[in-house]
Amino acid sequence: MTVRTVPIGSEVLADARRAAAELRDGFRRRGTLVVNLLSSPGAGKTSLLEATARYWNGARRMAVLVGDIATDRDAQRLAPWTPVVQLTTGGACHLELPLVQRGLEALGPLELDFLFIENVGNLVCPASHDLAEHLRVVVLSVTEGDDKPAKYPKMFRTSQALVINKLDLLPYVPFDVNAAVEDARKIQPDIKAIPVSCREGNGVDAWCAFLDEELGRLRTSCHAG
Amino acid sequence: MTVRTVPIGSEVLADARRAAAELRDGFRRRGTLVVNLLSSPGAGKTSLLEATARYWNGARRMAVLVGDIATDRDAQRLAPWTPVVQLTTGGACHLELPLVQRGLEALGPLELDFLFIENVGNLVCPASHDLAEHLRVVVLSVTEGDDKPAKYPKMFRTSQALVINKLDLLPYVPFDVNAAVEDARKIQPDIKAIPVSCREGNGVDAWCAFLDEELGRLRTSCHAG
Repeated sequence: MTVRTVPIGSEVLADARRAAAELRDGFRRRGTLVVNLLSSPGAGKTSLLEATARYWNGARRMAVLVGDIATDRDAQRLAPWTPVVQLTTGGACHLELPLVQRGLEALGPLELDFLFIENVGNLVCPASHDLAEHLRVVVLSVTEGDDKPAKYPKMFRTSQALVINKLDLLPYVPFDVNAAVEDARKIQPDIKAIPVSCREGNGVDAWCAFLDEELGRLRTSCHAG
Repeated sequence: MTVRTVPIGSEVLADARRAAAELRDGFRRRGTLVVNLLSSPGAGKTSLLEATARYWNGARRMAVLVGDIATDRDAQRLAPWTPVVQLTTGGACHLELPLVQRGLEALGPLELDFLFIENVGNLVCPASHDLAEHLRVVVLSVTEGDDKPAKYPKMFRTSQALVINKLDLLPYVPFDVNAAVEDARKIQPDIKAIPVSCREGNGVDAWCAFLDEELGRLRTSCHAG
């Protein structure tokens, strides 16, 4: 009698990868850029989305799926500015695709330029989960320290952009913007660094210009495909 | 032929619980208080330990096991002040007991008043892992926002103390200390709240007095046992 090993784990992973790829491609064909926003708790993901929606003031069609372990506080903050659905993981430390898909059903059919997925505040686990995004953005606040890219490498290695938030607090904390960006680029040489202050609004224009560029690139690839 | 379900998962968990309980009891008998420090990335766990070691200035025997995904930067910071061993998880989002046990071997035989275990920066996953501590302390910095106890309930529910750090930044951020403590006490009514500024030193005396009280309580229970 031979021992058979059934690789259930890898089949499940392959299914998840396929589902994410199909969803991503569907969004590409509809011309919607999907952005997965990741950070430590309190780095300013929700503030960045508030600032983004205020900056555009209706000039772009956006919606947000916002993930938290508990409470709908982030959705309450965002509701005045944008269509939003709160995803509550009930304990889980990151979002996974099936919850995102339920969020999309709750959001209903919308023609969008941008779909933002605000992940659970966690600089580790969400890095390992594909949520069908075209663009992964890690938000790092200056109050967390410039050593974070080196200490949490996977998050920075898998992101295309690094938003450095809370620039308004830079005079009061020991944070070297160049050192943080250099460490991030040792891990991910192509990462785009965008310093902002969501509270004061500095840099939000550059962030939104970057999003527009990425949307343009997606739509070009769309016509090419 | 009957189907047997082998509950490997729960046996492994029971073994881990037993190992943690035995280790905890061994430390109690030797009069060493084990403190598990948890927080988001950059909330100030390492700064709190630096401030603690400086405050005691050799008057207490302490050592630190410091967990990170990558780098030994935190151990380098602590080495001038205290015996320290860096635990590197190589990607894992929290510490587990076997790695702590290897850290203890690396630390060597020391007579200690306090053994601090600085967990990986993560406000979610470390809450689920018993590292044989007598005291679990969550560090929340004011720059993270006062909504964190409600949004990350397990971390606060399983902690005996809440250190609110970076008080020196309170004038520059929207953070209501009372609101954060009230939300934490809805989840864990007995949580001890200790506001500090590790950079300026405020509150470090109260924190160290609290640790001494807890050590006294452990040693009383030790004599009683």
